[in-house]
Amino acid sequence: MAPTFLPAPLPLCLCLLLASGFSQAGRLLVVPMDGSHWFTMRSVVEQLIQRGHEVVTVMPEVSWQLGQSLNFTVKTYSTSYTLEDLDREFKNFAEAQWKIQEQGVFLFFANSSAGFFDLCFSHCRSLFKDKKLVQYLKESSFDAVFLDPFDACGLIVAKYFSLPSVVFSRGIFCHYLEEGAQCPAPLSYVPRILLGFSDVMSFTQRVWNHIFHLEEHLFCPYFYKKVVELASEILQTPVTAYDLFSQTSIWLLRSDFVLDYPRPVMPNMVFVGGINCHQGKKPLPKEFEAYVNASGEHGVVVFSLGSMVSEIPEKKAMAIAEGLGKIPQTVLWRYTGTPPSNLAKNTILVKWLPQNDLLGHPKTRAFITHAGSHGVYEGICNGVPMVMMPLFGDQMDNAKRMETRGAGVTLNVLEMTSDDIADALKKVIYDKSYKDNIMRLSSLHKDRPIEPLDLAVFWVEFVMRHKGAPHLRPAAHDLTWYQYHSLDVIGFLLGIVLLVAFISFKCCAYGFRKCFGKKEQRKKTQKSKTH
Amino acid sequence: MAPTFLPAPLPLCLCLLLASGFSQAGRLLVVPMDGSHWFTMRSVVEQLIQRGHEVVTVMPEVSWQLGQSLNFTVKTYSTSYTLEDLDREFKNFAEAQWKIQEQGVFLFFANSSAGFFDLCFSHCRSLFKDKKLVQYLKESSFDAVFLDPFDACGLIVAKYFSLPSVVFSRGIFCHYLEEGAQCPAPLSYVPRILLGFSDVMSFTQRVWNHIFHLEEHLFCPYFYKKVVELASEILQTPVTAYDLFSQTSIWLLRSDFVLDYPRPVMPNMVFVGGINCHQGKKPLPKEFEAYVNASGEHGVVVFSLGSMVSEIPEKKAMAIAEGLGKIPQTVLWRYTGTPPSNLAKNTILVKWLPQNDLLGHPKTRAFITHAGSHGVYEGICNGVPMVMMPLFGDQMDNAKRMETRGAGVTLNVLEMTSDDIADALKKVIYDKSYKDNIMRLSSLHKDRPIEPLDLAVFWVEFVMRHKGAPHLRPAAHDLTWYQYHSLDVIGFLLGIVLLVAFISFKCCAYGFRKCFGKKEQRKKTQKSKTH
Repeated sequence: MAPTFLPAPLPLCLCLLLASGFSQAGRLLVVPMDGSHWFTMRSVVEQLIQRGHEVVTVMPEVSWQLGQSLNFTVKTYSTSYTLEDLDREFKNFAEAQWKIQEQGVFLFFANSSAGFFDLCFSHCRSLFKDKKLVQYLKESSFDAVFLDPFDACGLIVAKYFSLPSVVFSRGIFCHYLEEGAQCPAPLSYVPRILLGFSDVMSFTQRVWNHIFHLEEHLFCPYFYKKVVELASEILQTPVTAYDLFSQTSIWLLRSDFVLDYPRPVMPNMVFVGGINCHQGKKPLPKEFEAYVNASGEHGVVVFSLGSMVSEIPEKKAMAIAEGLGKIPQTVLWRYTGTPPSNLAKNTILVKWLPQNDLLGHPKTRAFITHAGSHGVYEGICNGVPMVMMPLFGDQMDNAKRMETRGAGVTLNVLEMTSDDIADALKKVIYDKSYKDNIMRLSSLHKDRPIEPLDLAVFWVEFVMRHKGAPHLRPAAHDLTWYQYHSLDVIGFLLGIVLLVAFISFKCCAYGFRKCFGKKEQRKKTQKSKTH
Repeated sequence: MAPTFLPAPLPLCLCLLLASGFSQAGRLLVVPMDGSHWFTMRSVVEQLIQRGHEVVTVMPEVSWQLGQSLNFTVKTYSTSYTLEDLDREFKNFAEAQWKIQEQGVFLFFANSSAGFFDLCFSHCRSLFKDKKLVQYLKESSFDAVFLDPFDACGLIVAKYFSLPSVVFSRGIFCHYLEEGAQCPAPLSYVPRILLGFSDVMSFTQRVWNHIFHLEEHLFCPYFYKKVVELASEILQTPVTAYDLFSQTSIWLLRSDFVLDYPRPVMPNMVFVGGINCHQGKKPLPKEFEAYVNASGEHGVVVFSLGSMVSEIPEKKAMAIAEGLGKIPQTVLWRYTGTPPSNLAKNTILVKWLPQNDLLGHPKTRAFITHAGSHGVYEGICNGVPMVMMPLFGDQMDNAKRMETRGAGVTLNVLEMTSDDIADALKKVIYDKSYKDNIMRLSSLHKDRPIEPLDLAVFWVEFVMRHKGAPHLRPAAHDLTWYQYHSLDVIGFLLGIVLLVAFISFKCCAYGFRKCFGKKEQRKKTQKSKTH
């Protein structure tokens, strides 16, 4: 057996390297998106500032997370909604996810989220109404825009100011990533998002994958209607969603193939999944250190449904609390709602927890997560098997991916009982294969030639240096859809084949008539003569 | 105007980093290919040895370049041909390229190269006949195979010993890269190799691209017949070319998108084009230093048709010599044939030249090359505009790519006159756009997050560490061709649509008959009564 050998210690060196900096700094415009999206994007922005670039971030006055980030120039604009409006709409949206989904994915999504997305999409109008701000941005000669494409405002800004753009995202809702990057996605093994399929699909699943893709083409223009109208109004020319997405120079995608399924990609897609893992571990705060130390041989389970969901319907919370009480581990549960009355002794509710540091602790046995990508990557990074309770967005897909890799168990939040929860936890803690699989994924995930944060920084700077990345733009963008799929060529070749077949047939028929027709004629003539 | 800023100094740091090494060394088997292919592959192998790995290279006793490389364990096996046979067959092959190609690309290629490729493909049988060597390889517990896929011997070795493999290549002849990596290549903008098309094709070119692709499917199984027969014989089971190529863990492709056109790629493809550029410049040998210094304000032109072609038919050599005499630059021409009688004073024939160092000299004005990928990358790396005389293989494609980027002029070696040569040289030297374009490409090419040599070393080690890269293998490999293209799903959905249409039609027809049929019946009855 050949020896196992460890990867070379890249990160430290690359940090030194990146710290060495540019000979001259550039000017970068940042258009972020509120919520958990901003957590990792901010870390890239902070690196860029450290490297001496002048960074200007435009953000709405009203936001959850954006205001917290502050050692760079921030330009705010007023919005037509208040923080209370935002909270209320998100609460409605989040609560709807806990209810039975009897409609199709799209209808459910559209109905439960209409109000919330209307708010998300509306603030861009406010930005462009702020004439002073627009004037300032126009005069600022930025080298590039670094943007989160979720609410499309960054895309509109990039187009309005004709700036090369770097998109930072986990993925793109609908088919606009494939369309915008001209990236093939064979429906036979690339599951559409939100379906929760793996890359190995049964015939029925492949049929649904096709139907869902057709649905996307019907639903998505409707979903993006307001965005497209807004963009057309601001840009004073009719634009499509494709126009907005296809201008992207570099796609920084928070994807990694230990989580996502391998599939065709494009040269201007850069994969920085797990970018949030890089941060050096900090020692646990005393309070948490004490909990972990007191957990004994059984260790702890970390439980968080992410930064956005901190409350759960009472009945569901009771079921969860009951399930947690059935395992010997200490459970650290981030929960800000009313404590369930049946909370067991082993369960400790906290308003906040140092998730990554806790997951990195050797006494952590499992991680209960909503399967948001940040959490899942932290789980992979630290090699902690997961029990997943996906709620919305890409969470179903993330959970499915970890499940097919044998590194976690997915629970249906709408149907799960306390026994299901306890069973799932026992399974991932005591069935050794889960730990083995997550450790294997972890070692693959962390073994990279360059740290994702450094890679992200590199490509933002690349776009700033070269004013885009035109050499990575495929010529497919200049083809019509029927040219791209070669329908004109296939039609032409088919036409020729048919023409040749037709002419051959006619010639044969003519020859046949010549040869046999005469004989027949003669026969007939003879016959008529004999009569 | 925003300031221009330079890329961070990555390479030095990464070298330090890579020098820091592994905690434990691995065992690597190398199966190289003779000729210029080996130049860059050797540099990767040398790095791996420096990093402490035990490397064993298997190579035929008879070769041009392989024997020159030697600070690692070499295992040779005898061949059924001599060096003279090899030289003769290659000479025949090379000479045929200077003759008018009246047949199609494939036919010409097959006819002119049959003998040479028969030799290339045959030595693998000799390897496996050497029972002692096979036994040694079996017992050596290698972590991986690092191979050049051109003659397929490495692929057979990998399959025979069930070792994970890293392929090192400029590209793969025929459609086996697309098939083996399951990588889509839309024919509407991805030109097939050997055609010399760009990614922007006219309708006619797109039609030819399709026809050529069909031809590939007919010709390639014939071209690879001997390989497949040999592989089946050695592996003692019937295999296909797909079986050989599809086992690849990582494709290290000597491709870069400043040269090649952006197109869909797969996550296990790693692009290391320009890997030969990395070497630090050495000062010129005195002889060349003197030539360059004596060239005055006009500078020099570097002329080499690669390591494999050093002689040219006399008539062609005379035309070239005449053309070179028409420019004021000093021409340094690597040429081992009989000197043309009309050689001008400005032209110096040399048996060898330090190509990369000469191209890096600020007095070098142009580079006349056969457009082999090594030369083209050195031209890009050093920012020297090119006059290209492609002869065979990927050279036509390389030339086309540089031409479409405005960084070089292509000459048709079969038809070019002395005036064409002189005009082309004057164009690339005095039309400033050529220098500007090549400098732009050069700056894009050299601006990478990690040096290609380090990247290649990383991925070979990755495959050694993890015994492959299964997480990068797309699920497409487990689908049949009709499943991959979703023909079964499309057929099923179409069937349903037709069935629904048929039933609807029948229902309508029935309803129609019910409603109007009776009236008609009644009318008819009435009519018949009135008669």
